[in-house]
Amino acid sequence: MKAIASAPGKVILVGEHFVVEGVPAIAAALNLRTRVTAFTIQENIIRVYSKDLRLKEIFREGHIKKDSPLYPIFVAANLAREHAGIDHGLELNIESELPLSAGMGSSAAVSVATAAAVIALKKNLEKEVVSSIAYEAEKIVHKKPSGIDNTISTYGGAILYSKNKGFEKIEINLKDAALVLADTGIPRNTGVMVEKVRKLKARYGAILDLIYASAEALVYEASKAIEVGDVKALGELMNINHGLLSAIGVSIGKLEELIYTARQAGAVGAKITGAGGGGLIVALCYKKDVEKVENALSRVAQRVYVTAISKKGVALEHKN
Amino acid sequence: MKAIASAPGKVILVGEHFVVEGVPAIAAALNLRTRVTAFTIQENIIRVYSKDLRLKEIFREGHIKKDSPLYPIFVAANLAREHAGIDHGLELNIESELPLSAGMGSSAAVSVATAAAVIALKKNLEKEVVSSIAYEAEKIVHKKPSGIDNTISTYGGAILYSKNKGFEKIEINLKDAALVLADTGIPRNTGVMVEKVRKLKARYGAILDLIYASAEALVYEASKAIEVGDVKALGELMNINHGLLSAIGVSIGKLEELIYTARQAGAVGAKITGAGGGGLIVALCYKKDVEKVENALSRVAQRVYVTAISKKGVALEHKN
Repeated sequence: MKAIASAPGKVILVGEHFVVEGVPAIAAALNLRTRVTAFTIQENIIRVYSKDLRLKEIFREGHIKKDSPLYPIFVAANLAREHAGIDHGLELNIESELPLSAGMGSSAAVSVATAAAVIALKKNLEKEVVSSIAYEAEKIVHKKPSGIDNTISTYGGAILYSKNKGFEKIEINLKDAALVLADTGIPRNTGVMVEKVRKLKARYGAILDLIYASAEALVYEASKAIEVGDVKALGELMNINHGLLSAIGVSIGKLEELIYTARQAGAVGAKITGAGGGGLIVALCYKKDVEKVENALSRVAQRVYVTAISKKGVALEHKN
Repeated sequence: MKAIASAPGKVILVGEHFVVEGVPAIAAALNLRTRVTAFTIQENIIRVYSKDLRLKEIFREGHIKKDSPLYPIFVAANLAREHAGIDHGLELNIESELPLSAGMGSSAAVSVATAAAVIALKKNLEKEVVSSIAYEAEKIVHKKPSGIDNTISTYGGAILYSKNKGFEKIEINLKDAALVLADTGIPRNTGVMVEKVRKLKARYGAILDLIYASAEALVYEASKAIEVGDVKALGELMNINHGLLSAIGVSIGKLEELIYTARQAGAVGAKITGAGGGGLIVALCYKKDVEKVENALSRVAQRVYVTAISKKGVALEHKN
């Protein structure tokens, strides 16, 4: 038996960092996907092969390598196998359009696609089950995952997430818009950045509380812009949001270079996406301007991804 | 008779732009000065010579060139002459360490030093009179001057200014600190920037109101930091303030390049100073780090000024 499932990566459009203190954030699925092919095999093992990591690992009862980068995939596959009541061993082949450790949710996309492909070998897909299995795998990758990545990868589209209110779907009407993501080539370190912001907030609480309140108002406004399809407003709000991220100290010179390059080339909005201190920017463009923005960023960024928000979440692509 | 007076330029440390909506701003006098030498002459004219502008102009009753760049200096000199009851003509020689049209208050410093030198030919200096004469000249240069520039140039030191409360002196205790200003080489346009911010505020009032409230809390905190001599806190607050300026859309790529260059080289804080969209950045450094910051900025800025906050306002340097 063989099943192929795919799941999308994600981008944080607005609200990162502020989300730590209860402000909502908006995440959206990208049309960049991870594809997992699952086979049943006779031997009672789970064999995982990642084309991108160029890594193959065999997980056998009593010999589970917990320090393998592929261990979270094993966990997702094993939970999915139990859920579906599969007695066979499994072989999993992973292929991804998503860069690793870039804040684009590649680990969640792999776990979601893995759970989906394995369950599909015997059962119909239930998205709630897929997402919650992927969440278990995410706990291994990230210490305290918010659940944003597995949720958006499972359901696609855009969601409003907050610590208190959980997830809320946002209708997307951004037909003319594309996203360009560009990588500084400088690794981000989420933990260090979150700690830096925590310290600044402890020192300048009254000032930062108002910045956080501004970020909250901004995220709700951005949510409206996505629903009514106001690309210009969403871009302007992303620019304001970038300033607020600069204010809390998570930007660096290279991020600013990419951001102003994108805006100069015609992006309606450009900002840090994710933890900052390195990592990626996201630029929102009208489709007609994508090529200009892509070309300009290609000259200064380590890598550029032209993509778009996608309504498609996890999907069964093939089964026999 | 001859009198020489000098007056300092200024820098906005925090609060620019937000000041338009009633938030306070802090301006400080620099140890970069303009020097005006005034002579009485027989002929009943006012002759003005600016070394920096390489311009000489004669103002004669019935032949007043109002479109001359030296006209505001004539206005200050003439008001001062009337105030002091001088019957002679005047010759004025202007020399300045301040760049023109850079937001460093060079026009106010010239007017202040002019008024002071002329009054000193016959009377004792009264600072209130000097400042109010300079304000009249400032009205010619800037349409609606806030009065910050002539006030700071007259009294020296640092002041808290707000539209509602006017001016309040701040005690300065920043012994270990220096300022480095760096010019993008791109002309700023205050009017265009103020209008851009106004439009953004009209569109996103709820979001920007909170940013303005944050800026207000920040300015009061910065005022405390200056008084207690907490250089690190003042720097951190300048960095937050820069983010808020980025949020309201007045930064550009070149300003960000200078800012992150300064921070990287050891400045404790760096931000846009003035209207943005070009113009200058101001970096706050410990004295020990000034050379590193200066050298780093020299590689990327059009011009770099190493300076410090100065308690010295307008001063009579020579009289005979």
